[in-house]
Amino acid sequence: MLRNRLLASLRQIKPINCSPFLRSLSNAANSGLTRVEVDHKSGIATLSMNLPPVNTLTLELMHDLIDSINQIECNKSRGLILTSSNDKVFSAGLDLKELYKPDQERLKEFWTIFQDLWLALHLCGIPTAAAINGHAPAAGCIMATACEYRVMLPDFFIGVHATRFSFLVSKWMMLSYQSVLPRRIVERALNQGKLFSTQEALEVGLIDEVACSKEEALAQCAAFIGTFDKANPIARTLTKRMCRDADVRELLRDRAGDLRSCMDYINTPLFQEGLSAHLEGLKEKK
Amino acid sequence: MLRNRLLASLRQIKPINCSPFLRSLSNAANSGLTRVEVDHKSGIATLSMNLPPVNTLTLELMHDLIDSINQIECNKSRGLILTSSNDKVFSAGLDLKELYKPDQERLKEFWTIFQDLWLALHLCGIPTAAAINGHAPAAGCIMATACEYRVMLPDFFIGVHATRFSFLVSKWMMLSYQSVLPRRIVERALNQGKLFSTQEALEVGLIDEVACSKEEALAQCAAFIGTFDKANPIARTLTKRMCRDADVRELLRDRAGDLRSCMDYINTPLFQEGLSAHLEGLKEKK
Amino acid sequence: MLRNRLLASLRQIKPINCSPFLRSLSNAANSGLTRVEVDHKSGIATLSMNLPPVNTLTLELMHDLIDSINQIECNKSRGLILTSSNDKVFSAGLDLKELYKPDQERLKEFWTIFQDLWLALHLCGIPTAAAINGHAPAAGCIMATACEYRVMLPDFFIGVHATRFSFLVSKWMMLSYQSVLPRRIVERALNQGKLFSTQEALEVGLIDEVACSKEEALAQCAAFIGTFDKANPIARTLTKRMCRDADVRELLRDRAGDLRSCMDYINTPLFQEGLSAHLEGLKEKK
Repeated sequence: MLRNRLLASLRQIKPINCSPFLRSLSNAANSGLTRVEVDHKSGIATLSMNLPPVNTLTLELMHDLIDSINQIECNKSRGLILTSSNDKVFSAGLDLKELYKPDQERLKEFWTIFQDLWLALHLCGIPTAAAINGHAPAAGCIMATACEYRVMLPDFFIGVHATRFSFLVSKWMMLSYQSVLPRRIVERALNQGKLFSTQEALEVGLIDEVACSKEEALAQCAAFIGTFDKANPIARTLTKRMCRDADVRELLRDRAGDLRSCMDYINTPLFQEGLSAHLEGLKEKK
Repeated sequence: MLRNRLLASLRQIKPINCSPFLRSLSNAANSGLTRVEVDHKSGIATLSMNLPPVNTLTLELMHDLIDSINQIECNKSRGLILTSSNDKVFSAGLDLKELYKPDQERLKEFWTIFQDLWLALHLCGIPTAAAINGHAPAAGCIMATACEYRVMLPDFFIGVHATRFSFLVSKWMMLSYQSVLPRRIVERALNQGKLFSTQEALEVGLIDEVACSKEEALAQCAAFIGTFDKANPIARTLTKRMCRDADVRELLRDRAGDLRSCMDYINTPLFQEGLSAHLEGLKEKK
Repeated sequence: MLRNRLLASLRQIKPINCSPFLRSLSNAANSGLTRVEVDHKSGIATLSMNLPPVNTLTLELMHDLIDSINQIECNKSRGLILTSSNDKVFSAGLDLKELYKPDQERLKEFWTIFQDLWLALHLCGIPTAAAINGHAPAAGCIMATACEYRVMLPDFFIGVHATRFSFLVSKWMMLSYQSVLPRRIVERALNQGKLFSTQEALEVGLIDEVACSKEEALAQCAAFIGTFDKANPIARTLTKRMCRDADVRELLRDRAGDLRSCMDYINTPLFQEGLSAHLEGLKEKK
């Protein structure tokens, strides 16, 4: 039964992920690729991705992000704002080099931790918002859609452009996109590999607000987190997880299958050749 | 097969619910908590909730509503308009006192009849519309979303604010909300426990029209019911039920599970404490 | 696993449907009810329905359409534009005479080929767009919704008005409608048997653009097909099929059941009487 499953999830998550040194929110345990700042007045934690030059989601960055999300969640912060230390790029998405002629064991670990990252963010018990202060392509966009609110700065782009490098996203990634945008828009955007400008993203609803500066974006995210003040926090967490249950179950009921299917696809000549051409194109741009 | 199941539902429903004295639409059998008026020119039945002070959905009011809906449906009315005799409150939602330190047998009956009420309204064979002439929080909003059209008067609020009293709605209640609003809006509104103003409700699509007076609201509902004049009534009923089949099946395939899950949740200290604080807050407001 | 299933579908479809004389795109094999023109500059194929007076979907026209879609797909065209040779009617929908007092074997063949047609168009590997240069009621609308983009000329109507002739559409037809429009709009429109004017269709999103002339409509469809230029074609095909997988599976997991359910319904007196009245009404209009 859904309610019991959700209640059980509350009990399970806490003891496993919460360290006894929660209040410190130290990054000592990780390699400094993320930065967590808690506003002690508002109680809101800002989690910044901090891997120059473009916050590529490497194994290490994803590991740190999961750690930080879990710590912030356990630390009873009032909310989590995901943003970037870089003022041009929110996150450039997955490290595509990991997908090119991959070592199979490493690829397995890489995809599994990406699944973990999405689950950690998508199911995060406290209110989440993304202050998108730079470009957010591919997995950068998926992470933004896993949050509950999106504020973006002008003149950047956001979207899942996987078909441009021959990638076929997993169904749970499509569902994450669909949790924010109408079905018709999602299919078309995924097929095109569309990158939306800030203005286009606002018009279709992929983002909720535009901000003039990072400070304004953080303030708007904080205001969104404030809208939950009248809600009971635990009932809120359970309600959020119920709303996201169908999407999450798509992944959880067969994580191994998603991994295998994804690895099989990545190993096809079709994908390897498409990715190779894409990586060449990126080199030439530089 | 869906079509056969739908056709069978037609056959099943009629003989069970329709009394031999349909034309009278008398409320003799019930305790007068609802009022049914049939406009003999238009053939449209107006069903008014009539339980002062705020049309709280008590066991008795829900029982009368189900009776009235069934009678109106059997009586071959051209449509059903749900409204309130009270000019401030459409319905204040479920009787929360039934959920506080509940007698288990009584709670079981209470939740079961609420399921019945939603099913009766959601699957009602004739066109339905809600003339929302007052506030419509919680189950008041769910009843409005179970209708096919919503007209609301200005300066009231509508929405499912369950998280504000620590309640976790059932999945079928979420689906009822989602049958009217986009997924993203529903998740956010449920998490916040948001009550939409009339104007906000219009903007997101939770209501279809705003009316200046109750008379105008009833006229707009009647006009909506008139839009089905070219449709074959039985094909219309079957089509409506097909469109709502997935939502209804969510409840029907495990009604006992929904009941048990809901009772388990209501009996948690989490909920009892949250509800207690909420009820105290309501007292103080008065 | 979804990805493997999708990849396998690529392999299966090609060898079966592609003739060795693809480049010719001749209609020699069919009876001339469709016309295919390939713009050798753009690589886009225009498929015109060409059965006077109103492109009624007869067995023969549907057969030709499937052949033409398969040929265009195999011929590595850059895209497919579906349109009509008639400047008043895109397609009048299914041949209702086939549903009236039907020969059972013929009805079986008729419904099966309609399923085939929807599958061929809905799963077509290359980009598809509809230049709706005339009325598009019922199955005419379903065919338009099976395309990825819709451009329509002014002063026509489009919609699934099945309830007006007592028909109950299949669930996959409803899902095809829902892949384009929000749930609330679909339920209401199906129940009403609503025919949207060009302007109304644009407002709800049933069509994407309005064009002043057929030439402009074809140009806008071609521009849409051009939006996929940066996407890898095979990754695009797989992504499209993943997005449409849930809708298609609804039909594919029990095609025989859909056929039987539909035949049972068509044979009910309810439907036969409703259809008879509708056909009489159409005669009187002439």
